[in-house]
Amino acid sequence: MNSNSDSADVVLAVDIGGTKILAGYVDRSGTIRQSHKYDMDRSSQGAALAAIERSVGHFRQLPRDGPAPCAIGMCMPGQVDAASGTWLHCMSIPIGSPVRLAEQFGDSGRLPVALDNDLNAAALAEATWGLGQAFGDFVYMSIGTGIAAGLFAGGRLVRGAANYAGEIGHMSVEPDGEPCVCGNHGCLENAASGGGMIARARARLGRFPQSSLHELERTGQLHSAAIFREALAGDELAALIKDKAVRALETGIVNVINLLNPEAFIIGGGVLRDEWLAEHLREHVRSRCMPVVRQSLRLFGISGFDVNTVGLLGAASVAWKHV
Amino acid sequence: MNSNSDSADVVLAVDIGGTKILAGYVDRSGTIRQSHKYDMDRSSQGAALAAIERSVGHFRQLPRDGPAPCAIGMCMPGQVDAASGTWLHCMSIPIGSPVRLAEQFGDSGRLPVALDNDLNAAALAEATWGLGQAFGDFVYMSIGTGIAAGLFAGGRLVRGAANYAGEIGHMSVEPDGEPCVCGNHGCLENAASGGGMIARARARLGRFPQSSLHELERTGQLHSAAIFREALAGDELAALIKDKAVRALETGIVNVINLLNPEAFIIGGGVLRDEWLAEHLREHVRSRCMPVVRQSLRLFGISGFDVNTVGLLGAASVAWKHV
Repeated sequence: MNSNSDSADVVLAVDIGGTKILAGYVDRSGTIRQSHKYDMDRSSQGAALAAIERSVGHFRQLPRDGPAPCAIGMCMPGQVDAASGTWLHCMSIPIGSPVRLAEQFGDSGRLPVALDNDLNAAALAEATWGLGQAFGDFVYMSIGTGIAAGLFAGGRLVRGAANYAGEIGHMSVEPDGEPCVCGNHGCLENAASGGGMIARARARLGRFPQSSLHELERTGQLHSAAIFREALAGDELAALIKDKAVRALETGIVNVINLLNPEAFIIGGGVLRDEWLAEHLREHVRSRCMPVVRQSLRLFGISGFDVNTVGLLGAASVAWKHV
Repeated sequence: MNSNSDSADVVLAVDIGGTKILAGYVDRSGTIRQSHKYDMDRSSQGAALAAIERSVGHFRQLPRDGPAPCAIGMCMPGQVDAASGTWLHCMSIPIGSPVRLAEQFGDSGRLPVALDNDLNAAALAEATWGLGQAFGDFVYMSIGTGIAAGLFAGGRLVRGAANYAGEIGHMSVEPDGEPCVCGNHGCLENAASGGGMIARARARLGRFPQSSLHELERTGQLHSAAIFREALAGDELAALIKDKAVRALETGIVNVINLLNPEAFIIGGGVLRDEWLAEHLREHVRSRCMPVVRQSLRLFGISGFDVNTVGLLGAASVAWKHV
């Protein structure tokens, strides 16, 4: 018998992503008791929803080493109506018409279900169990395949009119820059996200026949960390991509800090894992932000959460907030 | 006898600015019952504080056509600790050490005194009596001598760690641009504020000997509206200044709307009074903001408040909020 099984409740957390679905039981202290990873199928809205249903159904059938969950929390990319528990719209997973997930998974109302956008959820996890615990005003910025943020002000999420605040990735940091799919020009995401850096490198490989990135591309290893590494090793194309990414992050981060005057700026996601880059950006913030703003920024650092499970913690924190 | 004198309370509002101090009685409906303008003396902290004390003292001695005020509200530029009623720091008026204004003007605790930063106060006035009334999430951006904003999210002011959020004027909209006094480069304020436009024009007059701006400078009429007018009339230097200002506003405004997903974007201050410019920016927002964000922006327009009294309404709204 598990010694914790009677002493602590758990929620069922479901992290819905573009390539995987992660389901798990998470207790009130943020400990993941049990989890399982499933494939996402994003060939259509129906296929994606079926994958979610199948995954949750399978996970709930697994033998549990603890009590039944007291609530369900879900997080996903795109636009979410947190109040009604509806996934309204998404680009990376093809959700075109609203899906009432809370209704669908609530066991006919017996189990509370709460959902939120993945960045809001991650920021809430930071506020609940992470670096954000000590702060009422902080920015959680994720730099991964894309770039987006969750914003806390006065101890509450800044949701905006459509629960869509935080789109820092579509801040123009180069007004004369290349057009972005969003309609704007010179967006931060295109210069500094993992996806953006890879796309920029690929588009320029032809002009740099000697670049070490050719070999990485051939072997399927062209990702942001490799580009940073090759840049530091002296590759010209990699340096070009890296410099633009760093420059864009410098501008975007200083702009957000000047605008929101946060106590903490927490960086998550898979791209900015290198302490040299965090240190470089911290130094830039120190030299470029307005004095009052700079002085009140008590923390600028990398999230303590594992990039693979931050989504699950996010989903769990959404559930715990609603229990 | 004034017919309203018994039916409605008033607050004493004090709008403290770099060149003037405006004191007035404002009722709960936002009607200014009586007001008087005084000169500011910003030769030193002591002189500025003496000017405020003198102005408020004089105004309170004037014959009133209504009841005594039930509270005092003040607003001023710079950093304000709203909770303790302390003016912490200011650049445009030389406040270097904290001033406990609430204590000073509260008649030994008999009269509640509340203060706030001028942009927070103006945004609160919009929320209380202006275009912001209908919205929980809005941005109030003032384009005057400088540029700054007050931010509302979920029906509350976004204050930040040091009550200093909203510094949109120091968003870099041109990372390779000229250095700003704030330490950043290519700040919105330098390109698009009244002060910034005038400074840019002056710095370039020598290179444009035929410019019509020379005559305006000689006659003391070189201000932003005149620069816009001369640009539309074909003056090359004026067009240069105007185009850069418009471009900077386009970038800065779209960035803020994408980041905060507001329901309304309200523009105040003396510079952007021309409907053509508001219409141009509205169109730009429509074409450049992210779809969800654009669709949830229900209002993009110029504040209905008189630019000369918005500060007084701001100070009054701060007082009414605390009564």
